[in-house]
Parts: sequence; structure tokens; C-alpha cells
Amino acid sequence: MDHNQKLSLLKKTAIFRNTPETDLAAIADILDVISVKPGDSIFLKGDKGDSMYIIQKGVIRIHDGAYTFAFLKKNEVFGELSLLDAETRSASATCDKESTILKLEQPPFYEILAKDQEVLKGILQMLCRRIRALDEKSAHE
Amino acid sequence: MDHNQKLSLLKKTAIFRNTPETDLAAIADILDVISVKPGDSIFLKGDKGDSMYIIQKGVIRIHDGAYTFAFLKKNEVFGELSLLDAETRSASATCDKESTILKLEQPPFYEILAKDQEVLKGILQMLCRRIRALDEKSAHE
Repeated sequence: MDHNQKLSLLKKTAIFRNTPETDLAAIADILDVISVKPGDSIFLKGDKGDSMYIIQKGVIRIHDGAYTFAFLKKNEVFGELSLLDAETRSASATCDKESTILKLEQPPFYEILAKDQEVLKGILQMLCRRIRALDEKSAHE
Repeated sequence: MDHNQKLSLLKKTAIFRNTPETDLAAIADILDVISVKPGDSIFLKGDKGDSMYIIQKGVIRIHDGAYTFAFLKKNEVFGELSLLDAETRSASATCDKESTILKLEQPPFYEILAKDQEVLKGILQMLCRRIRALDEKSAHE
């Protein structure tokens, strides 16, 4: 998987959709490509987490034991809160169908955030949008 | 209101509680002190926002027309999402009892975020904690 393929995948994710391509190049450089088979565990609920994953192809199940929260497919992202705050994982992630996923780790990502205001603004906007959406949802329940 | 008083107020807020004092000094330097009287509008729902406020003393009402969401008191913060993403205000803020509030604006704050990883980590952790708490709340509703 070459640099341009990584770049093109980043552009399709909700988290980096609005980040300029020049800024994404630095992130593409620090992505690790991982192949997983059905049943492989990516992380367990309660693990200390400091990385996020992007699905290039395949299906990943997000679950708590037997209870499934979501089946995630290509261009979807998981584990992004732990990328930012390094808290423990609130759910497990297990490969459901043969998948290729890209891993983004916290230390090099924080260096990019500190250097690049556009990436930083994109991340902060994404987080604020989620809080606004959840606030709105809980106000109407 | 001098530098040390501003610093001591920042340390009491949820958003900056875990930020080292040396890092807070730069933020204390860019706070504007504003006095408001009962009935004074601080911002209206729908305004474009790019600043956050910290209450030093008094009471501020957060509302949508006649419907009140909250009465906020000393050491409490409001408008913090707009500080970060510069979206429109989701509620109005009006002075309820004579208050002194400190205003923190986005452009100088972003410069500090880019220079200071500790402040940046504190902000990202605060946002992630809110998302985790709201996620948990909506999972149990």
C-alpha cells in the first residue's frame, strides 16, 4: 500500500475529510498497515489505548463480549478517542471478515497536531461536532 | 484584576484544572475582563462565536428565549465549544446578577495550543471525556 493510497483513504474518513491534502501527507507517512483474519482481536475493552484505526477493506466488529455495537466497513474509523486521550478502550474490536486496517499512533500524531494548525482545527471541530450532536440528542430524549 | 488572580481562576475551571501552572500563565495574559449588569446580553443563540467565558463572580443565565438551561456561577465556564470550532452559539447567555467575566478569544488561544502540548492535551482530554460521558448516557437511555 503506497503513500498515495494511504492519502486517498485518509481523505475519505470523517475525521480528516476537511483537512487539506498537503497536511494529510504527514499523517499518511506515519500509518502502519496491518492485515487481520476473522477472529483476530485488535483490542479488548479495558486495554490502555493510544491509537486509532482506519479500515481500508474488510469488516471489524465493535462489541462488549457477545453484544455487538457495530459492524464497521471500509473508510470507517475506530478507536479515535483513545488516540486523543489515551484512556482505556470502552469496547472491544475484533476482525469479522478478512481486513486491512491502518493504525495511527498517538506520539507521532501529537507531534503533527502541534506543528500543523489545520490538522488541529480539523480534530477539534470533529470533537465539538460530536459533542453538539450528542447534546442535541440528549436534549430531545 | 491582576495576573495572579486570573491564574488562580483558570486553575479552578474544569477545562484547565489539569494544565500545569507554567502553561496557564500564557492563557492568563490573553484574558479580557468584562463587567456586566443584570439583563446585559453576552451573546445570542445563532451568533457566530469564537470565544469562551469564565465567571469570576455573579450569575449568568444560559437560555433559549424564556427557557432556561442553566444558571452558571463563579469558576464556571460557558461558550467553550465555540472557542474551539467557531460555530454559531447553540444558546443565549445573559447576565442574571451583576457579574465579572473573563473572555478568551480563539486566535490567540489557537497560537497557545500550537505552541504548548500540555494545554493541547488538556483540551483534547476534556473533549474526549465529554464525548465518553455523553455516549455512556445515551447508551443507557
